[in-house]
Amino acid sequence: MSHEKTRHLGILLFPDVEELDAVGPWEVLSYWARNFPEDRWAAYCFSADGKPVTCSKGLTIGSHHSMDDMPAPDVLLHPGGRGTRLLLDDSRHLEWVRRQRRSVPLLTSVCTGSLVYAAAGLLTGRPATTHWGAVERLRELDPTIDVRTDERFVDDGDTVTSAGVSAGIDMALHLVARLSSPERARQVRRGIQYDPQPPV
Amino acid sequence: MSHEKTRHLGILLFPDVEELDAVGPWEVLSYWARNFPEDRWAAYCFSADGKPVTCSKGLTIGSHHSMDDMPAPDVLLHPGGRGTRLLLDDSRHLEWVRRQRRSVPLLTSVCTGSLVYAAAGLLTGRPATTHWGAVERLRELDPTIDVRTDERFVDDGDTVTSAGVSAGIDMALHLVARLSSPERARQVRRGIQYDPQPPV
Repeated sequence: MSHEKTRHLGILLFPDVEELDAVGPWEVLSYWARNFPEDRWAAYCFSADGKPVTCSKGLTIGSHHSMDDMPAPDVLLHPGGRGTRLLLDDSRHLEWVRRQRRSVPLLTSVCTGSLVYAAAGLLTGRPATTHWGAVERLRELDPTIDVRTDERFVDDGDTVTSAGVSAGIDMALHLVARLSSPERARQVRRGIQYDPQPPV
Repeated sequence: MSHEKTRHLGILLFPDVEELDAVGPWEVLSYWARNFPEDRWAAYCFSADGKPVTCSKGLTIGSHHSMDDMPAPDVLLHPGGRGTRLLLDDSRHLEWVRRQRRSVPLLTSVCTGSLVYAAAGLLTGRPATTHWGAVERLRELDPTIDVRTDERFVDDGDTVTSAGVSAGIDMALHLVARLSSPERARQVRRGIQYDPQPPV
């Protein structure tokens, strides 16, 4: 009998995180983890101090862990949102992000989360994307980045960045396909009935 | 100068609500309300007692109001999720839903939220939809319902029901189009970069 270890997906919460940046991927990843325990993945949300955060549009979301007590993540997801503006100048946060790069196999971001990775120097010379409204800022932060403005997400091996807000749902399904299988990702997609038909 | 009153969109939270059922529409509706204050709409989340709820996949979300202290909603949104199973047999909740029908101009639901409306007797003889996995349950609850299995959402005037989980995002954009204008809904769609491309 296998004693394979559970692997962990950690979603960062911070003040003024954009709600759907975090909860879109949370829905996909936790749906996967809970409905397919045989895959041995678990998802959690965490914040610096482990306390709830108030998001960009005023919703409060609880954290399962603090940065100090969270299980070592195998995949880290850094959402975006208005709160990233402060993080770009927060040397403690940028140093924390650089430490994650050294220990976490796969770093992912949604929306302006990639600006934080860029500010931490993690995207130098690499392809990446962000919210359409932050493309110029991403280029300013690091002119060596190959900014892909037409892609829903960019998978560059140990780093996956996605476009704005709702693109995190598409990226999260890609992560399920990559970490488990495309068939599993289709099962999750069917579970959350993700057959989008924008009405406008 | 106009003294037009602010109108309110209230999103119900309850134990084991499905995360994206609530937060998908929250993103759309609060993005609209906050970025276009000239439209005079505001969004809030509420729970029976005003306390945070733990959702179906384990995320905790805070409420802005309780049922007793919330501003009178002009639009009510009832999400679905595993927690609706209990609500279907909760006579106090069903009576509360019937009271809302008498005072709230527009009742909306996501996913299995429509089962609760059906159990409360609000969908008799009307077209409606739900999560694909709950279609038979909806028919059992009220065989007079014209269940639309192929539609992303069904707008029947004072009631709008949507399909499973992620369909709430499409429905919420429809609400913005209906309550403001299609152009406004397109602005919100662009803001959350909702150009979905499911990768599987």
